[in-house]
Amino acid sequence: MSAERAAGLERYERIILGIDPGTNVMGFGILGVMARKACLIDLGSLKMVRTETHYLRLKRIFDYTRDLCERFLPDELAIEAPFYGKNVQSMLKLGRAQGVAMAAALSRDIPVCEYEPRKIKQAITGNGAASKEQVQSMLKHILGIAESRLPHELDATDALAAALCHFYESGKPVVARSGSWKDYIAKHPDKIR
Amino acid sequence: MSAERAAGLERYERIILGIDPGTNVMGFGILGVMARKACLIDLGSLKMVRTETHYLRLKRIFDYTRDLCERFLPDELAIEAPFYGKNVQSMLKLGRAQGVAMAAALSRDIPVCEYEPRKIKQAITGNGAASKEQVQSMLKHILGIAESRLPHELDATDALAAALCHFYESGKPVVARSGSWKDYIAKHPDKIR
Repeated sequence: MSAERAAGLERYERIILGIDPGTNVMGFGILGVMARKACLIDLGSLKMVRTETHYLRLKRIFDYTRDLCERFLPDELAIEAPFYGKNVQSMLKLGRAQGVAMAAALSRDIPVCEYEPRKIKQAITGNGAASKEQVQSMLKHILGIAESRLPHELDATDALAAALCHFYESGKPVVARSGSWKDYIAKHPDKIR
Repeated sequence: MSAERAAGLERYERIILGIDPGTNVMGFGILGVMARKACLIDLGSLKMVRTETHYLRLKRIFDYTRDLCERFLPDELAIEAPFYGKNVQSMLKLGRAQGVAMAAALSRDIPVCEYEPRKIKQAITGNGAASKEQVQSMLKHILGIAESRLPHELDATDALAAALCHFYESGKPVVARSGSWKDYIAKHPDKIR
């Protein structure tokens, strides 16, 4: 990011914004990385009002995500994105909600990564079929979140889980591109019979 | 719009931007309204490159739509939006493409109206099952578009058709809100037995 981070945020090497967009509620969670450890910066949710039109909801998701990007200057956006839904109608609506949130990040050149709910649950709890409550409980334990800071809404912790999943995934060792069998043999002569 | 329209555009009472968003091609058409008549201002399409990632495509749709909004200062956005698709996967992708385009307009407080392809074809040709070629041919006739100005891509004329459909729909007489049965009876005493 070219802009300077606000006081208190400059100590983080990296900031990850996690979101769980929907047309009724959008959860968000922000993780800061310091000395290769992730810690909670903020979490919460944007609740849509029942009387709001579909377009007003999309505009609110866009504005809210843009505000989060401006306030926290995240380096990456991790998004919970189910690839399967009940029907084409609900998938179109979900796609639009995801689209406006992605537009807010992409317009600031923040890269987007998406993870399926199952993948996120697996990364956080070790069980791809874990309940939302189990995910929240594990997050509380891993990030040492005080009970008072946990919102009642599970959308916020779902979004935070997406951010933590992205932190784990992006920290996985990648096979060095310069690596070759020749180098491997040179380093491990005992493996040659 | 609060901003001033560029030279040549200030003579229009109203400008309608029509778009047909997709993740491979996005068509656009711009209509100007003068003395209650619609005329062509511009039309064209944004073609995505096959090697581009899904996110880069979404960003390009957002940037392109925002640029169109900045250049032409439209009063409304009309969007061709199918409500049914082959499968949930394609609907999610389409929803995202629609979402980023809508975000570009909504972030400038431009109201969005969507029309089903069938509705657009019906409004332009009188036949909801008309081919894209028939729609293009009718548009050429209605708006008096010179052959040389018509692009080969049918996405551009599809988008223009969405704008013209919106012009027709928004010009339809609306039942006056102040109307009541009391007024009706006063005006039509013969209807009372």
